[in-house]
Amino acid sequence: MKQIELLWQEVRDLSLGNASSVRRLDSPPAPLEFLRDFVSPNKPCLVSGAATAHWPATALWRDRAHLARALASSSVTVHLTPDGRADSLVPIDDSSASPSPSPPPPPLCFASAHAERVPFAEALDMISRSSRESSFVAYAQQQNDCFRSEYGPLARDCDEHVPWASKALGSLPEAVNLWIGNHFSETSFHKDHYENLYAVVTGEKHFVLLPPTDVHRMYIKDYPAAQYSYIKETGEFKLEVEEPIKYVPWCSVNPYPSPENLESEMAKFPLYFNGPKPIECTVKAGEILYLPSMWFHHVKQIPDDTGLTIAVNYWYDMQFDMKYAYFNFLQSIEYQPIHDYTGTEGESEDL
Amino acid sequence: MKQIELLWQEVRDLSLGNASSVRRLDSPPAPLEFLRDFVSPNKPCLVSGAATAHWPATALWRDRAHLARALASSSVTVHLTPDGRADSLVPIDDSSASPSPSPPPPPLCFASAHAERVPFAEALDMISRSSRESSFVAYAQQQNDCFRSEYGPLARDCDEHVPWASKALGSLPEAVNLWIGNHFSETSFHKDHYENLYAVVTGEKHFVLLPPTDVHRMYIKDYPAAQYSYIKETGEFKLEVEEPIKYVPWCSVNPYPSPENLESEMAKFPLYFNGPKPIECTVKAGEILYLPSMWFHHVKQIPDDTGLTIAVNYWYDMQFDMKYAYFNFLQSIEYQPIHDYTGTEGESEDL
Repeated sequence: MKQIELLWQEVRDLSLGNASSVRRLDSPPAPLEFLRDFVSPNKPCLVSGAATAHWPATALWRDRAHLARALASSSVTVHLTPDGRADSLVPIDDSSASPSPSPPPPPLCFASAHAERVPFAEALDMISRSSRESSFVAYAQQQNDCFRSEYGPLARDCDEHVPWASKALGSLPEAVNLWIGNHFSETSFHKDHYENLYAVVTGEKHFVLLPPTDVHRMYIKDYPAAQYSYIKETGEFKLEVEEPIKYVPWCSVNPYPSPENLESEMAKFPLYFNGPKPIECTVKAGEILYLPSMWFHHVKQIPDDTGLTIAVNYWYDMQFDMKYAYFNFLQSIEYQPIHDYTGTEGESEDL
Repeated sequence: MKQIELLWQEVRDLSLGNASSVRRLDSPPAPLEFLRDFVSPNKPCLVSGAATAHWPATALWRDRAHLARALASSSVTVHLTPDGRADSLVPIDDSSASPSPSPPPPPLCFASAHAERVPFAEALDMISRSSRESSFVAYAQQQNDCFRSEYGPLARDCDEHVPWASKALGSLPEAVNLWIGNHFSETSFHKDHYENLYAVVTGEKHFVLLPPTDVHRMYIKDYPAAQYSYIKETGEFKLEVEEPIKYVPWCSVNPYPSPENLESEMAKFPLYFNGPKPIECTVKAGEILYLPSMWFHHVKQIPDDTGLTIAVNYWYDMQFDMKYAYFNFLQSIEYQPIHDYTGTEGESEDL
């Protein structure tokens, strides 16, 4: 259905622009302008400098001693994976398969990280220690309003909400989350049913973004849910598919395939790799990204000179309105054109 | 494609509601609330009483003498049709066809009214005189910013713009139009690429409304453009298809079929007649209807006790954004299910 590809382009031509960068604002927008120019058209923006300059966190959180003191009595949830890619697609462990010269690639599952609560100082240590030599990568990425619960003692170091966003959206945040990661922490492509104000306090976060109208380029499929468990004594991870089997719809595309996989990934996901260039945005310390509801995002981090990236995000309820209904309609249409590199094109459509 | 019918319902369930009435506000909304609660979700509202109470027009325009004095030196455009239905579908005049016992219904064309400029007093007289006995129905419905041009001397009787709408939308109106009609004036289903604030000064206007997501229920087709011309000497109309032939896409549905046509209309346009009930809204003197961009609307009038309905509408530029791109995508999908009254359903789809 070529109309779907026309839609990708028309949204860009009319509204989002064709640049692969996000509109930058030198200072926080007035609520009405924010609503009119960004929220209503579902368009991201990056607010620089003045966004969080007044937060005590901006100065204080680069000092681990301050963090450790504030959270001396707190236990927090830390997430462990072999490689830093939590909530992502990994091959189902299948060591019972008979060896063969050219085994087919193993099926993928949606793997959740091993999560445990530890005293904060230990969590910080685990995150800092994660490296190619350690047996795990730790990431503090609990997304359940943790900033207002687990990290409560830090709350006074940031704004409780983003005032110009709260005024524009007509509500306070539904959830505020704290993220502490390292160089390896990576979040695979997904979308959230929230309007998201994402503030980086120290380090940098790199986002790859696609609008909701590009949904077919994400090749969302159902994957069996699986769970990592970390065995401390051996330093090994076990990956077990949940039983009874439960399916999680997830984006299949990795925007950073390794060189050896590039050709096969491009062949599997041509709508992604051959379509309009995704938008990329690096959010630096002190900046706030407005990540509009339903936008697909992939996140990597560049740590500060202490090896950490710390961010706070504010999730506001989104309007479930005509745009949302249109999205559901679009997603309900199957579209899997058969492309090949020589440029011949066929279509396999199923309505 | 049943997903289209699910879309109609989901927009209502999530956002517009299932009532067949428009949300009523007792006083003008604050700009940010107007933007958030109505413009952004593309949702109509009716602002009562206080909307235009401060306009001199509210008191003055029921007095024809005032209108005549103000426009004593003005010529204005008046539109004449046989029956008051300007810009609508009428049978192509085909008197050369051989008579037959059961002739097929003649094809339809999109007929524009006969337009002429006359002194205002004469225009007002023609509009008042229109009746079933007169040979024409006159309607002042020039939609080219006429309030600020032809009707300039009346401009001080109304606001130049709708302040809370201008603030919300970030601009002044692109056009302001004056409408003077009578009991017979009727505007067939169409949509406008504007955010519309529609203020009734005297009399009442009755709107039948459907959201853009219901586009398939309008059975938009291409019709040959035609032009009425009125021959004063004989009091007759001639209807001529334009040459070279030019096609106008127009909504095929009449929401008020005559009793003798009801069954055949329901058979021709089942998606309209069998789908969710349209929204209806009577805008009384002193009230302002926010008619969101791209909404299909059909308009009738109930005159005041002098036989006239007078209204002013403010057209603001709309945002050509993601919603607009989604609409174009939706409209590009052909959907013509074959229904019949016994409830059996087939689908003729063409993608």
